Amino acid sequence: MRAIVIHAPKDLRIEESAVEALGPGEVEIRLATGGICGSDLHYYAHGGFGTVRLKEPMILGHEVSGHVAALGEGVSGLAIGDLVAVSPSRPCGSCEYCHKGLPNHCFNMRFYGSAMPFPHIQGAFRERLVAKASQCVKAEGLTAGEAAMAEPLSVTLHATRRAGEILGKRVLITGCGPIGALSILAARRAGASEIVAADISEKALGFARTVGADHTVNLSENPEGLVPYSQNKGYFDVLYECSGAAPALISGIQALRPRGVIVQLGLGGDMSLPMMAITAKELDLRGSFRFHEEFATAVRLMQGGLIDVKPLITHTLPLSDAPKAFEIALDKGQSMKTQIAFS
Amino acid sequence: MRAIVIHAPKDLRIEESAVEALGPGEVEIRLATGGICGSDLHYYAHGGFGTVRLKEPMILGHEVSGHVAALGEGVSGLAIGDLVAVSPSRPCGSCEYCHKGLPNHCFNMRFYGSAMPFPHIQGAFRERLVAKASQCVKAEGLTAGEAAMAEPLSVTLHATRRAGEILGKRVLITGCGPIGALSILAARRAGASEIVAADISEKALGFARTVGADHTVNLSENPEGLVPYSQNKGYFDVLYECSGAAPALISGIQALRPRGVIVQLGLGGDMSLPMMAITAKELDLRGSFRFHEEFATAVRLMQGGLIDVKPLITHTLPLSDAPKAFEIALDKGQSMKTQIAFS
Amino acid sequence: MRAIVIHAPKDLRIEESAVEALGPGEVEIRLATGGICGSDLHYYAHGGFGTVRLKEPMILGHEVSGHVAALGEGVSGLAIGDLVAVSPSRPCGSCEYCHKGLPNHCFNMRFYGSAMPFPHIQGAFRERLVAKASQCVKAEGLTAGEAAMAEPLSVTLHATRRAGEILGKRVLITGCGPIGALSILAARRAGASEIVAADISEKALGFARTVGADHTVNLSENPEGLVPYSQNKGYFDVLYECSGAAPALISGIQALRPRGVIVQLGLGGDMSLPMMAITAKELDLRGSFRFHEEFATAVRLMQGGLIDVKPLITHTLPLSDAPKAFEIALDKGQSMKTQIAFS
Amino acid sequence: MRAIVIHAPKDLRIEESAVEALGPGEVEIRLATGGICGSDLHYYAHGGFGTVRLKEPMILGHEVSGHVAALGEGVSGLAIGDLVAVSPSRPCGSCEYCHKGLPNHCFNMRFYGSAMPFPHIQGAFRERLVAKASQCVKAEGLTAGEAAMAEPLSVTLHATRRAGEILGKRVLITGCGPIGALSILAARRAGASEIVAADISEKALGFARTVGADHTVNLSENPEGLVPYSQNKGYFDVLYECSGAAPALISGIQALRPRGVIVQLGLGGDMSLPMMAITAKELDLRGSFRFHEEFATAVRLMQGGLIDVKPLITHTLPLSDAPKAFEIALDKGQSMKTQIAFS
Repeated sequence: MRAIVIHAPKDLRIEESAVEALGPGEVEIRLATGGICGSDLHYYAHGGFGTVRLKEPMILGHEVSGHVAALGEGVSGLAIGDLVAVSPSRPCGSCEYCHKGLPNHCFNMRFYGSAMPFPHIQGAFRERLVAKASQCVKAEGLTAGEAAMAEPLSVTLHATRRAGEILGKRVLITGCGPIGALSILAARRAGASEIVAADISEKALGFARTVGADHTVNLSENPEGLVPYSQNKGYFDVLYECSGAAPALISGIQALRPRGVIVQLGLGGDMSLPMMAITAKELDLRGSFRFHEEFATAVRLMQGGLIDVKPLITHTLPLSDAPKAFEIALDKGQSMKTQIAFS
Repeated sequence: MRAIVIHAPKDLRIEESAVEALGPGEVEIRLATGGICGSDLHYYAHGGFGTVRLKEPMILGHEVSGHVAALGEGVSGLAIGDLVAVSPSRPCGSCEYCHKGLPNHCFNMRFYGSAMPFPHIQGAFRERLVAKASQCVKAEGLTAGEAAMAEPLSVTLHATRRAGEILGKRVLITGCGPIGALSILAARRAGASEIVAADISEKALGFARTVGADHTVNLSENPEGLVPYSQNKGYFDVLYECSGAAPALISGIQALRPRGVIVQLGLGGDMSLPMMAITAKELDLRGSFRFHEEFATAVRLMQGGLIDVKPLITHTLPLSDAPKAFEIALDKGQSMKTQIAFS
Repeated sequence: MRAIVIHAPKDLRIEESAVEALGPGEVEIRLATGGICGSDLHYYAHGGFGTVRLKEPMILGHEVSGHVAALGEGVSGLAIGDLVAVSPSRPCGSCEYCHKGLPNHCFNMRFYGSAMPFPHIQGAFRERLVAKASQCVKAEGLTAGEAAMAEPLSVTLHATRRAGEILGKRVLITGCGPIGALSILAARRAGASEIVAADISEKALGFARTVGADHTVNLSENPEGLVPYSQNKGYFDVLYECSGAAPALISGIQALRPRGVIVQLGLGGDMSLPMMAITAKELDLRGSFRFHEEFATAVRLMQGGLIDVKPLITHTLPLSDAPKAFEIALDKGQSMKTQIAFS
Repeated sequence: MRAIVIHAPKDLRIEESAVEALGPGEVEIRLATGGICGSDLHYYAHGGFGTVRLKEPMILGHEVSGHVAALGEGVSGLAIGDLVAVSPSRPCGSCEYCHKGLPNHCFNMRFYGSAMPFPHIQGAFRERLVAKASQCVKAEGLTAGEAAMAEPLSVTLHATRRAGEILGKRVLITGCGPIGALSILAARRAGASEIVAADISEKALGFARTVGADHTVNLSENPEGLVPYSQNKGYFDVLYECSGAAPALISGIQALRPRGVIVQLGLGGDMSLPMMAITAKELDLRGSFRFHEEFATAVRLMQGGLIDVKPLITHTLPLSDAPKAFEIALDKGQSMKTQIAFS
C-alpha cells in the first residue's frame, strides 16, 4: 500500500509501506479521505514546530475516514464496508489522566502523526490503516469528506465545552482558518446569538460569513476594528482564540466583558499579555487541547444535519497529487480545507 | 380602555379600566398581542392553583407585546411606534436576591397576573399598558405574535441554563404543551444531538415533531414507552420535566444515565420519587422557575432566526373573543398556543 | 485464616477461609482494623436491604486497614510492614464510566461485601486480604483505626465535592450517625461557617457537637425544630441528607434558601417530596454515591491533622468478639463507630 | 476630626477634615483601626500605580473598623457602640453588573481611597467616617485590629471562590505579603491538603509557615526551587498568584498539572506568558478582583475561630504616628500588616 511520508521540509513522498497486522479488537480500514491539518503543514513546510523536530521519516495525517475492510477478532458493531470516521486520539486508558476522564492529557498518548516522542508516532495517511475498533465511529449518511472533518470539528466541540455557557451569548472568533471556521459552526450550534469573526485575510473572512458569522473584522485592513467593542469594559462574553497570534488575543482581551471567557485553541509561543485587564475584569483564560469523546459527538451532529461542514471543504485531490494538495493547503489565500482522496 | 378580568372560575369579563399614569422611566404601550399561559388557564378554570386563590378580580396575562405609544420622562432607546416584547418579570432590584443576580427569587417580585400576594398583582391583558422602559425589549423584525412568545421561550432558556451542558447531549422532554415544545426548540438551539419527547396526547406529540423532536413516545398508548431507555443504567443526559406529573418524572428518572440532570419546570404538587435511583445514579434534580435576563435573549434568538416559534401559535382571536380564546386554550387536544390580538 | 461471614440474619460466623493467591500488582495484607458500616449491619440484621438479599454466605466488611505482608510481582511504592488503608472501590478501569472519570458508576464494580450480583462480592473482614496495590494508600502516622475510617470519610468528601461551594456557607446535616458526623467534619474542613445538625437521637447529637456542629436540633423532642430556619424562603445554603428518612429531607427542603443544594447520601426508598418548593426555590437535589479518588484524599487530610476522626471511634473489639461488635454497632444509642481489631 | 491625606509621593499629612453629614440609612463611625494596604503604599511611595496618578489630595485607607457613634434615620440592626468592620466596596446597586450579582464590576463603584476617577474617591482613614449601614458588619468578639483585616481577607475569600474546588487539593501560593499569607489561611480553611508558598523574602516565608504553609520555597536563594514540581506535567492543582511578578506566574504555570487553576490576584503589568503550556495543559487562568459579599463571610469566619489573622498584624501605631506607620509598612523585610489605631 502507499503512504504519505514526510522526510524533511518540502520533501514529501508517496511511498510503499507494509500493512500492519490486524490484532484482536482492531479493524483494517481502506482509507477514503484524509484532511490536511495545520500541524501536517508545519511538518511539511518547516519539519516541525516550536522545539518539535522530525528525526526520522514520518507518515503524516490524523483527519481520516475510510471503509472497514477486515475485522479483527472480537470486534462487534462494525461490518465490512461501513464508512467510519477514525479518531486519531489513542490514549493508554490506564494512566492517571485517563482515569480522571481527561484522556487528552494521557501520559502515553499516541496521537497519529506526531514527532513528539521518538520513535515518532506514525500517521494515518496510508491506503490501509489498522486501528482499534474503539477509534472508529460509524458515519453512515455522511460523505467520506465530511467524515474526515470529524477530527477538526471535535477540536472545536471540545473548546465549546471548555467555554461553558454559549446559549444567547456574544462570541468573538479570532483566526478564521479551518479551526476558526469550525468554531463558528460549533458556537452557533451551541446557541451563540451573535458571532463576530476577525482575521487578517479577506478570503478567510468570506468563509467565516458563509458558515454563519454575523459580522467580520479584517484586522489587516483595520487594525483598530475591535476597539469599538472594547468600550465600557467590553462587549463579548466568549472569545475563541484560534490564531495563536498575540495581537489577536490582546485585542480580544480588551473586547471581552468582565467575567468573559477566552478559550485558547491557537497554538502559539510566548505572548505578552495585559494582565491588569485579565485581573481587573476577572477574565477566564482557558487552554483547550485536542478532544476525546467529542469525536463521536461530531459525527452525530453532522449526521443529524445539525452542523454542516461541507462548505469548508474547498479542495479534494487524489493520493497521487498529495504534494500538490499540500501546496494548495499551504496557500491560505486559496484554500480552506484541502483533502486527499485515497480511494 | 378594555382589559380581560377574571372574577371567578369561568367568569371572565372584558371590562373598561383606567389607563395608569405614565411616570418617569416608563412607557405607555398599545398592546398588540397577548398569549394565554397555563397559569392564566388555572385562574380561568379553577380560580387559582395549589393554595393560591383569587380574592378579588384580577386582570390576567403576562405574555405580551405591543407598540410604544408614549414615553415617560428620561426614557431613551425607545421610540413611539416601536414594537416591544414586555417582560412580566418585575423584581424590586434592591433585595438580597436581586443583588445576588437571582432576581427571579426577589422577595418583592411583582410578576404580572399573580394572585399570590393580596392585593393581587394585576396582569397585562389590557389595551394600554404602562411599563418600565427596562421591561421592554425592542422586537423589530418579529411579528407581534412572536414577540409575545418571548415570555414562555424565556422560561425554557432559563431552564436550559439550569441544565448546563447540552451540546451533543441526549435530551428527554416530558410534557409537550407550549413549555415542552419550546424546550425542544431551546434544547436544539443549545446543541442537543437527540431529542425524545413524551406526552399522553398525540396532538401534542405532533407539535413536538414539528419543532424538532427526533422521536416521540405516547405514554398514554404505551406507558412502558421509556423503559427501553432505562436499560443499562439509563440513556439520556438531560430531562426537561414540563408536565408536573409524577409518572413522567419517575419514568424520566429511570431513563437517565448516571450523573444525568433533571430540570423541573412543570409545576406539580407532592410527588413520590425513587430516591434510591436518584442517589445511586447521582442524578441532579434542579428546579427551574421563571427567568429574568433570558427575556432579552429570547427576543435576540428569534430575531436572528435562531429559534422559530411561529409553528406553535395555533390560534389568534380578537380581544372581543377573549372568552372563546380561553376555551380554545383549555382544550389541549385542539390548540398549542392561543393568542389574543388586542389591536 | 479467619473471616467474618454472614449466613443469614443474625447468623454471623467467624470461619476459616483460604488466603487468596497473590498475583502481579497485588499485595497481601495482614488486616489490622475493620469498621462496621450501616450496610454490614443491614446484612447482619435483615439479610439485605431493599430488594438486595443474601443468596449465599458472604464475608462482610469494606472499611479496612492493615499491614503489608507480601508484595506481588511488579509492585512498587509499598514495603512490607507498611500500614495501609485499603479502598473497597474496585472499578473495572475500562468501561464507559471508568473512562469518563466516574468510576463509582462502573458497570462492573466489585465493591467489597456486596450481595448485589451473584455470586456475591466477598468482603474484606478477613485476617489476610489480597488486594491490588492501587487500592492501598500508605497511612503512616495514623492509627490503624483511623486508617480504617478512610472509607466512610471518603463518602463524605465525595458528597462535599458534589455539594460545590462550602466556604463560608450555612450547612444543615440531617442524620448524625457516622456518615452525618463525618459530613460535619468534611463540611467544616471545606469552610462551612455555620453547621446545624439534626437527628432524633440525643446521643448522636452529642457526637455532632463533639465534632463541631454549632447547633443541634432534636427532631424527636422538637419536630418543628427546623421551622424557624424555613422563614423568609429559608436559611441554609447546603443540606447533607444522611438519614435516608423522608421527614428529614422534607424539613431540609423547607429550610433551604433559593438555589440551595441538597446532597443526598442517605439511602432510602421512595419519598414523597414537595416538588413545588424544589421548583420555585430552584433547589438542586444531588445524589451522592460512594467515592473513588477521595479515598487517598481522606488519608492525606487525616495525616495532615486536618480532619480528626478519632472521637467517632467509640468501640474496638477483637476479632473473636465480632458478633458482640455487631450487636454494639446495631445499638445506635450506645455506639458511633464500632471497629474490630484483627491483629 | 483628623484624617490621613496623601498630597504627593512621601507627602503624607494628618489633617483636620469635616465630618460628613449623616443621611438616612447611614451611620457615623468612630474609627478604631485602619490597616495599610499595598495600594495605600503605592500612593504613598509613588503617587499612584500604572497609569493611575494622584491629581488632588486624597484621604487614604480602605481596611477599617470602628464603633458606631450615631445612627441615621431608618437604620436597624446596629446600635451605638457596636464594633463594626466597614466594607470599602460601594457599588451603585443598579447598573448591569450589580444586577448580575457581580458588584465588584459595578460601572459606578466608589471604592474608598481610589484615585481612578476624578474627583478621587476619598478614603476611610479618618476619625469619623459616615458610611451606609449596609457597609457595616457587626464584629462582636473580634478585636478592632482583626475587624480591620476583614477587607484583605475578603480579597482572598473571593479568590478562593474563583479557584473552585480546594478540598484535598495541592495549592501553590506565589507572593507571601499580606494577601499571600491570607490566601494561605483561606486555602487551608477551604480544605487544601498541601500548601507550598514561594517568595523572595525569607521574612515573608516565615510568616507563611506561621499561618500554615507546609513547605516554603525561597525563589531568591533558589530560583529553580519550583522546578521539581514541574516534572511529569506538573504537581499543583491550584495557584494563587499574589505577587504580580511575571517570573512567579511563569514558574507556577510550569508547576501546575493539566487542568490546573491559576487565580491571579497580584496586580502587575504586561507579562510574557508561555501560552503553549497554558494551552496544552488546558490551564485556567482566572483574574480575581476585589470582593463583595465575601466581606460578611470574612467576619463570620474570624468570629467562629475558623480563620485566625492575628499573627499577621505585626505593628500597630497611633494615628499621630501615621507617617512612621507607612514607613514601616513599606519595609517588607520588617512588617507584615501594619495598622493604625485611631482611638
